[in-house]
Amino acid sequence: MSIDVRTGKLLSSPLSDTGPAEIDHVCAAAAAAAPELEALGRDGRARLLDALGDALEANRARIVGLADAETGLGTDRLNTELTRTSLQLSLFADVLTDGAYLEATIDHAADTPIGPRPDLRRMLVPIGPVAVFGASNFPLAFSVPGGDTASALAAGCPVVVKAHPAHPATSAACHQVFRAVLADHGLPPGTVGLVSGHDAGAALVRHPAIAAVGFTGSTAGGRALFDIANSRPAPIPFYGELGSTNPLIVTSAAAVERATAIAAGFAASMTLGTGQFCTKPGLLFVPATADGDRLVLDLSHRIAAMDPGVMLSAGIRDAYQDGLAAWRRSPGVTRIAEVTTDGKAGGFYGGPALFSVDVTDLSAEAAEERFGPAALVVRYRDTAELAAALSRLGGQLTVTVHAAESDEPLVSSLLTTMRAKAGRIIFNGFPTGVAVAWAQHHGGPQPASTAPSHTSVGATSIRRWLRPIVYQDAPAAVLPAELTETEGGAAAIPRRIDGSLVLPNGRRAGFPDNTPEAQ
Amino acid sequence: MSIDVRTGKLLSSPLSDTGPAEIDHVCAAAAAAAPELEALGRDGRARLLDALGDALEANRARIVGLADAETGLGTDRLNTELTRTSLQLSLFADVLTDGAYLEATIDHAADTPIGPRPDLRRMLVPIGPVAVFGASNFPLAFSVPGGDTASALAAGCPVVVKAHPAHPATSAACHQVFRAVLADHGLPPGTVGLVSGHDAGAALVRHPAIAAVGFTGSTAGGRALFDIANSRPAPIPFYGELGSTNPLIVTSAAAVERATAIAAGFAASMTLGTGQFCTKPGLLFVPATADGDRLVLDLSHRIAAMDPGVMLSAGIRDAYQDGLAAWRRSPGVTRIAEVTTDGKAGGFYGGPALFSVDVTDLSAEAAEERFGPAALVVRYRDTAELAAALSRLGGQLTVTVHAAESDEPLVSSLLTTMRAKAGRIIFNGFPTGVAVAWAQHHGGPQPASTAPSHTSVGATSIRRWLRPIVYQDAPAAVLPAELTETEGGAAAIPRRIDGSLVLPNGRRAGFPDNTPEAQ
Repeated sequence: MSIDVRTGKLLSSPLSDTGPAEIDHVCAAAAAAAPELEALGRDGRARLLDALGDALEANRARIVGLADAETGLGTDRLNTELTRTSLQLSLFADVLTDGAYLEATIDHAADTPIGPRPDLRRMLVPIGPVAVFGASNFPLAFSVPGGDTASALAAGCPVVVKAHPAHPATSAACHQVFRAVLADHGLPPGTVGLVSGHDAGAALVRHPAIAAVGFTGSTAGGRALFDIANSRPAPIPFYGELGSTNPLIVTSAAAVERATAIAAGFAASMTLGTGQFCTKPGLLFVPATADGDRLVLDLSHRIAAMDPGVMLSAGIRDAYQDGLAAWRRSPGVTRIAEVTTDGKAGGFYGGPALFSVDVTDLSAEAAEERFGPAALVVRYRDTAELAAALSRLGGQLTVTVHAAESDEPLVSSLLTTMRAKAGRIIFNGFPTGVAVAWAQHHGGPQPASTAPSHTSVGATSIRRWLRPIVYQDAPAAVLPAELTETEGGAAAIPRRIDGSLVLPNGRRAGFPDNTPEAQ
Repeated sequence: MSIDVRTGKLLSSPLSDTGPAEIDHVCAAAAAAAPELEALGRDGRARLLDALGDALEANRARIVGLADAETGLGTDRLNTELTRTSLQLSLFADVLTDGAYLEATIDHAADTPIGPRPDLRRMLVPIGPVAVFGASNFPLAFSVPGGDTASALAAGCPVVVKAHPAHPATSAACHQVFRAVLADHGLPPGTVGLVSGHDAGAALVRHPAIAAVGFTGSTAGGRALFDIANSRPAPIPFYGELGSTNPLIVTSAAAVERATAIAAGFAASMTLGTGQFCTKPGLLFVPATADGDRLVLDLSHRIAAMDPGVMLSAGIRDAYQDGLAAWRRSPGVTRIAEVTTDGKAGGFYGGPALFSVDVTDLSAEAAEERFGPAALVVRYRDTAELAAALSRLGGQLTVTVHAAESDEPLVSSLLTTMRAKAGRIIFNGFPTGVAVAWAQHHGGPQPASTAPSHTSVGATSIRRWLRPIVYQDAPAAVLPAELTETEGGAAAIPRRIDGSLVLPNGRRAGFPDNTPEAQ
């Protein structure tokens, strides 16, 4: 059911729960579409991705309107999110054109000390149909459109999206837009399927035609699906991006230098999108100094002056309130600021909240993620206390440090712990906002991610949907173009040949004299 | 217990079962060694790997002697295996020097249509201590020394090896040799630990200090450990290379052209190392033609003329006999040739055996791996029967096709199915022998591998022990050398900078005019 989160009113019922027979049908259609999607080739899929971005653009107003009503995220944010998704589709078109993602590698036949070695040609190929679980908090960036779908289609894998129940109308509309583009490109509708309902999600992960899963959501929900993926007769990789509290550390010198600026930045970051970001900073380590007090006081005033925000669903709002209640009961945790939702009956509202605890009282439960506009200030006296508390935390998507220039020795000493705990380390910034880029990494040690060796954002997220294959002594006629001897045409990609990385223009790593005048 | 497989006599008891307290100690020592191993740097670890190879070489006669008594694989094969392991250590030293494996990526800060993007610098870092399970059939290539240990140490990950019970003396000796090299390089002994015993293996996979597992062995044993790895509070990646029957297809034209050569090659491949290779061809698809009959007859004569071979343990010998017995009971399966082990009492002997079945009678049970010198001939009438039978098989490490030049359309039509089923596709060759090379891939869809997106042999096997990290707006002083602006020194590696792949000599992909005279 599509619900207006600002009023709690039913808008429409665009998607009904998908039953077992229909799931079979959708998965079979995805499997049947796989050879056609792959046969489009890298150039054809790059054009497809660009066309998907254009189609979202052409339907911008309608999609953003639906998403705003269903999520309450606001049209500014949702317009930005749609642009971000278009940029992401465009980035993957670049990734396809570049071709290095294929890891094409050729070892010509050779003699070795243990006998002759055959001709070996390796590259990555699509893993098969991918199940994508839409996330509540990104209706356009981690849902029917978004990074998982874009990277899977780029890889050559059909997608079956499990729509998030918090934005069914947006999901259905985006799906319809995508289907039209697929038809334009001669692809079967099964290239992007859509299912709905809690049981449908579990059935999808169990379905033999599904080869991998991309998931963004809660730790509990992700773990349950991870367990299903791994208990299959033939387990499949489950790429889950789960919860994170994204600790942010302020050093004593940074508090002296810029307490106000840090408080302002933190208040904005923790309440962005009503705090419903997986990268929301939820733990703020502040020194137990006068400048630390000043920072916390400033932050508390900023939080107290805020309005309550609308949340993504009644369930998320309830879980948020439960999380705050748990802090209130938690020994040593005190409330500093909390905005009430009085006068906001009907819609799903949550008020920004700030709590505080001494580092020696920080329990594992208190350090758990509160999905919403809340954070816990943790006061520490020295680096030893700080490092000990950090090392007790679970894996995180991000960890941030605010330091002064003079803090470099301190930062270096913390870096090992920070690196062990998180996938992204941020210096003097804030964790919300995950730029789509070649160098991005969005993931982290358990429980932040179920597959910490892979990312769900950025160019390399395509690697999740690929597996290697090697051709031994294959006749040229059966080889993919990227593995043939010619370097022109489709093979104009970076390749490793007989151990050396070779660029499409013929430049080789390790051969500085490989220039025309030296030859 | 170390047992002479040719006589069944006890040689020594070099390793006792490792208890829980000792496992804790070994894992803690591995965790403590991690920063020191990483601090060695790529150059230091390259020198370490070369020194490990030199040390194996210096102890060659003693190690090969121990391994031969414990495994019966013969000194020729074991000498080759030791050389292969040295080559592998040397390949990973090259991988470290090359540095592309780090996937170093720099996106400088930039403006984008949705606002400013921070400076992002990504690279791969060691995942942490790795548990390696030694395999019965490769005492020097997949055991204490071998690909898993070499690739993990190269990545910067300490290793705890679970010794295979079939060659404890070899494992202990190799461990001792490695420990001396570690000391020479100033590394703590915990850099390579050794544990022993069935329960110790399970405890190792459960241990919180272990970050990933490398396993080569049986499907049942691998699945049990995979389940343990995934049921941990914080699951860890389990890279298991399990069983495979490695189907080999002979086309009608190939049978006409070279039935004898194929029979000779197949007989040698299926009995190499007494058939105890994970890549042993165990299913031979032969056309139901006169030339097919000729091939099978020739093969049956070759098998019948062979001697029984010594197997790796009493348990493996018993499982082999059980597998042959199951074929004897299997409807439609007939025995073509079987060598008895009469007169070979005491040692663990297995006789080469060849069975046959019509493709329409090929059951899933009959198609299961028989670890040992046995194969099942499957007779087919046409390509449709062949393709249908192939598509019913589980995932394989390899699939091989023997075809004539005129068969190219046929081979192309089979290629999609072959690719879907296996990680390595071999043309007109035999699957045994997995060359150590940049382009190698050793893995395949479930159940051949528990992680079909990764390989256990070849340069890219290092990727299993790495995870990405990204530094956002980091001060230069805290960045790893590989992510700093300077391109000399430690950063002389291929990197992707602002979207373009850049070689150490400054050449960029996509810029053909990037030569001195054009600038």
